Amino acid sequence: MQRILSTELATQEIGREVTIAGWIHRRRLLKSVAFLIVRDAAGFSQVVVTEPAVREQLEQLTEESVVEVTAVVTANEQAPNGVELTGPAIRELSRVAVPLPFEMHRPALNAGLAAQLDHAALALRHPSRAASLRIAAAATKGFREALEAQRFVEIHTPKIVESATESGANVFKLDYFGRPGYLAQSPQFYKQLMVGVFERVYEVGPVFRAEPSDTARHLAQYTSLDAEMGFVTDHRDVMAALTRTLAGMLGEIGGETRIDGEIPAVHFSEALRIAGAPADEPDLAPAHERALGEWALREHGSEFLYVTGYPMRKRPFYTHPDPADPTWSNGFDLLFRGLEIVTGGQRLHRYVDYVAALEKQGEPLGPYAGYLDAFRYGMPPHGGWAIGLERFVARLTGIANVRETTAFPRDLNRIAP
Amino acid sequence: MQRILSTELATQEIGREVTIAGWIHRRRLLKSVAFLIVRDAAGFSQVVVTEPAVREQLEQLTEESVVEVTAVVTANEQAPNGVELTGPAIRELSRVAVPLPFEMHRPALNAGLAAQLDHAALALRHPSRAASLRIAAAATKGFREALEAQRFVEIHTPKIVESATESGANVFKLDYFGRPGYLAQSPQFYKQLMVGVFERVYEVGPVFRAEPSDTARHLAQYTSLDAEMGFVTDHRDVMAALTRTLAGMLGEIGGETRIDGEIPAVHFSEALRIAGAPADEPDLAPAHERALGEWALREHGSEFLYVTGYPMRKRPFYTHPDPADPTWSNGFDLLFRGLEIVTGGQRLHRYVDYVAALEKQGEPLGPYAGYLDAFRYGMPPHGGWAIGLERFVARLTGIANVRETTAFPRDLNRIAP
Repeated sequence: MQRILSTELATQEIGREVTIAGWIHRRRLLKSVAFLIVRDAAGFSQVVVTEPAVREQLEQLTEESVVEVTAVVTANEQAPNGVELTGPAIRELSRVAVPLPFEMHRPALNAGLAAQLDHAALALRHPSRAASLRIAAAATKGFREALEAQRFVEIHTPKIVESATESGANVFKLDYFGRPGYLAQSPQFYKQLMVGVFERVYEVGPVFRAEPSDTARHLAQYTSLDAEMGFVTDHRDVMAALTRTLAGMLGEIGGETRIDGEIPAVHFSEALRIAGAPADEPDLAPAHERALGEWALREHGSEFLYVTGYPMRKRPFYTHPDPADPTWSNGFDLLFRGLEIVTGGQRLHRYVDYVAALEKQGEPLGPYAGYLDAFRYGMPPHGGWAIGLERFVARLTGIANVRETTAFPRDLNRIAP
Repeated sequence: MQRILSTELATQEIGREVTIAGWIHRRRLLKSVAFLIVRDAAGFSQVVVTEPAVREQLEQLTEESVVEVTAVVTANEQAPNGVELTGPAIRELSRVAVPLPFEMHRPALNAGLAAQLDHAALALRHPSRAASLRIAAAATKGFREALEAQRFVEIHTPKIVESATESGANVFKLDYFGRPGYLAQSPQFYKQLMVGVFERVYEVGPVFRAEPSDTARHLAQYTSLDAEMGFVTDHRDVMAALTRTLAGMLGEIGGETRIDGEIPAVHFSEALRIAGAPADEPDLAPAHERALGEWALREHGSEFLYVTGYPMRKRPFYTHPDPADPTWSNGFDLLFRGLEIVTGGQRLHRYVDYVAALEKQGEPLGPYAGYLDAFRYGMPPHGGWAIGLERFVARLTGIANVRETTAFPRDLNRIAP
């Protein structure tokens, strides 16, 4: 017999025999009747048990045991979707023989974060935890589809690199066939090189930061949604593509937060004024970002705000300066509810500009040889962005700790499961 | 002025002024006229230069320099798609000031593999190299779409793990905040755990093998297309989902190789007989796989062939035995033109079976604690597969060396660019 999903029950003919399968989410063993709630990937089914032999079987099958239930579809206004299953035959697929570390059948998962992470494979089954992973999957799908509609091509780049170049510190070192190697902190250089091949590229992949601080915002591995595009006039072309991409992500997620039309943008110097910060501040502090978030909502009715033109001295060496005033950059951040969730901008594209930028920082060219090679052989004006998937989902859902938006987080203290 | 792509030229009104942009693929500086071939992500445009000042400009702009060309659409039967551009104004976006390490304008890339890999950012621009990366992108897109149509949910799993468990050797070791960590050789355990959450999951991501042999088939990092599904009867349900997924991949690639309907399957013991191997061989040698490929084409008109029931002693400990004869497994390989490109099977799903399997191999349970935890708390019968993206593309395109099917390969001797 073909198994059906819990969500398909309501469309079945009353009186028909069907088979469902899933986890025992909850048993309610009353005196004359027992109720069994079976959880599958789609939702829940209610099974009514009155036969003594089946009741006895159910008493042995504790919560999270996996069962297949063949029973009759019966109308009951009290049951989920007005349908329950009666007269069941239960086939045991997997029996749980130990107590669960925490209860799974409550509406909220009543367990500390450490316990949840220690038993992640169990905790993630709770609908509240699974929901944010589904949102992450939808965000990623929306990201890809919006980019492919804009001619971007998917790439896969190396996660093991020769030099600890970009942002230098906080890099994981490994033994690469007897010589040092490092885990890539971003696909930045590679996605730029691939602009030379496909003009527009994107990558969804892991990046690694040996972040020594144990905060609610940092992960040692996270999923980076990267894009890079060539033949731009400046960073505004990049922002337009990002806006369209974010709209696609939010559309795919299907929640209340949407982007219709443009996202407001303010220059960094104006942002400082709005946030009440001194005019010579080199960066935005969290309090400034929050103030800007409130301002954008108040003045523009927008939960999103671009801040453009960050000072060159606070942006990486490959950032393209503002041609009108090279103190400022063609770099931007995107704030969402007063928190930075995307960083992007226009990059340098001429070899001589790279050589000058690295010399200015007192950096040798050697470690960048493979990267600079592409720029010797002709690269168009280009720019791009990176979105941290987990932070984006956390901000969207209101989850305070980014560890709850990924299945098996890695941090300063955690490398398992 | 809005830039158009080379492929849009043929649909423009003759006599209209348009702007294109791209790389100088080739210059032909004849006595009275010069021809400029501009390459963009979509193809090629031909530009005719007769004006002395523009000719002089073009003489400075060597191949691979990046230009924007504004010119008049002119009919010419000799030109690509019957259209060329005349009376151009050329704006230089990036100038190449050094000789190229190899010529880019020949139909085939006339450079050794080492030179191509040393200058990957340049070599990949050659249409022959870019083509296989586009096929990889299409394969990946087809993989995801076919799986999402079958209710699979995308997951992201850790690439840094605590134990060098599965297949033990050939693992990269790293310093994880002062203690040892390892790069994941596959998402096998994690995707199994996530069957407990979503029933059906997939991941496209990098896997790492510290493969000490320098062959045309091995990479230290490759892209693994992984899927795992719960509530299966046995490995045949997994093969049916894989067949449908492969059909989707080949459909998205759009070449001549397609899958319509079922893929033939033979049991391992039968495969040995067909290949003329002794009945007690524990595995298929490359010559056996080739013989089976020829047989499948001859007998079934199929380039694909499943071999099922590999001996348990040659499969990993988590493999589910054949209930009818536990000498054989419910594991399978998929051969494509006589080469294994997919490995899969049904896995154990009961905690007690895992404990017995590890004990049989004399392995301690400790390193597997996080993995086994999920099975203590109830898991359905399940199975899945893994496809190596680069090997799949190599086999499909006839490319002999897997290094040519990825942008920046990593191997025993190469960690850059």
